[in-house]
Amino acid sequence: MNNQPIGIFDSGIGGLTVTKEIVKTLPQESIIYIGDTARVPYGPRSDEVITKFALEMVNFLLKRKVKFLVVACNTISAVAYSKIKKFSPVPVLGVLKPAVFKAARISKTGRIGVIGTDGTIKSNAYGELLKKIRPDATIISCACPLFVPIAEEGLNKHKAAKLIAKEYLKELIKARVDTLILGCTHYPLLYKAISETVGDEVILVDSSVPTTEMLKARLTEAKLLGKNRKPTLEFYVTDAPDRVQKVAGRFFGEKLNGRLKKVNLEE
Amino acid sequence: MNNQPIGIFDSGIGGLTVTKEIVKTLPQESIIYIGDTARVPYGPRSDEVITKFALEMVNFLLKRKVKFLVVACNTISAVAYSKIKKFSPVPVLGVLKPAVFKAARISKTGRIGVIGTDGTIKSNAYGELLKKIRPDATIISCACPLFVPIAEEGLNKHKAAKLIAKEYLKELIKARVDTLILGCTHYPLLYKAISETVGDEVILVDSSVPTTEMLKARLTEAKLLGKNRKPTLEFYVTDAPDRVQKVAGRFFGEKLNGRLKKVNLEE
Repeated sequence: MNNQPIGIFDSGIGGLTVTKEIVKTLPQESIIYIGDTARVPYGPRSDEVITKFALEMVNFLLKRKVKFLVVACNTISAVAYSKIKKFSPVPVLGVLKPAVFKAARISKTGRIGVIGTDGTIKSNAYGELLKKIRPDATIISCACPLFVPIAEEGLNKHKAAKLIAKEYLKELIKARVDTLILGCTHYPLLYKAISETVGDEVILVDSSVPTTEMLKARLTEAKLLGKNRKPTLEFYVTDAPDRVQKVAGRFFGEKLNGRLKKVNLEE
Repeated sequence: MNNQPIGIFDSGIGGLTVTKEIVKTLPQESIIYIGDTARVPYGPRSDEVITKFALEMVNFLLKRKVKFLVVACNTISAVAYSKIKKFSPVPVLGVLKPAVFKAARISKTGRIGVIGTDGTIKSNAYGELLKKIRPDATIISCACPLFVPIAEEGLNKHKAAKLIAKEYLKELIKARVDTLILGCTHYPLLYKAISETVGDEVILVDSSVPTTEMLKARLTEAKLLGKNRKPTLEFYVTDAPDRVQKVAGRFFGEKLNGRLKKVNLEE
């Protein structure tokens, strides 16, 4: 047993979808979340810069004595995971591996789709890992850049979201994938629009679920599970304009007004 | 007469809509364009950082002996215009003032709408200037964050664009504006969707047109008009992935493949 907090970090607020799942599944864990909202999005930045920014968040969390690190960001997981693992004295888990393992396990036909931001899709991190685990798989990937602003704007249930989903996903539908990885922590907000577009028969893999499952397994294995009677939830962002406060609640599933504290990582 | 180039700069590629208009109206001018595609968007950044980045582009252009500077970016115009003007030894023109003067002049009812990015709308730079020039005006402003990614994704003619325009512009329609300033250099690509949504009777002010008119007037007045027989067009970006090359053409109205040169402003 270990009652120290779990540290979760992301380039912005998308990681709150993962945090929501972790809080639901592991209600006795204390959690510290940090999102680098001042420097989001990381996608267009170089690997060096992404790694530097990510390590600043890791340091912030380690100073607060976290027992475990969750990289709740596809871009950071794709680009900087191994460097973070090497650097960190506590165990680390990203969102990429759990999603890939699950997709590889459940796909019947081996035709697996991956959607994500431009950066994630271009990195081909999902494709490479999938090929390693399941060499017979055919991977069809597709960037959906508008999904993030649609989710952040709260237009995820607007009929325009469905139209854009149709536009983006037509190649995946043509390719008859039977499993689709939502390779961006924002996409669970568009779950319904995506699912209705590709059809019920395609299984969507929302990384927050397998990531939480794997986190629980690894905490159990390392005897790090917490049994806090009064677990604490702390949320930090590097820039907290009104918009972030408002939008963050949609990702976490409950209002976070006034609960986001601003910190400066560059000092 | 002065055959030195005009320097045009923007946080990204939106300024190419202004450049397109300038090339059309002043075909004997040589032009150097620079877009800070590595650090776009500027919107969420602090005023200090925006000013610093903008002055780096100004320096880049001044080294190349430009005779005039056009700030083809609403965010930079709203935040850093006076600092650029103070710093620059050559005349400077932004996109904000020409659009505001035109809107104030043509609006009959004084009910003027302004749309732009979150940053531009929050700065209230348009509203403040409009109130100075036309104190009787009622200004209704509204951020349309999805318009930029829609334009960059080439979905500006997609029916989803129209649906999103309807969603964003409903308050402006309710407020019965008779003039609408497109306060973002990306928005001319959505001209049709916006115009069809607000109706023919609302006059859209695309800043590229009044900016070019004012540029021509100021060049004439200062005897700086060029008469190049073989005017040159140079395009620089701070990051030039394939996407930028492809997208830039849509903004400039002709293909720019291979014509964007990459430079590093931070060296």
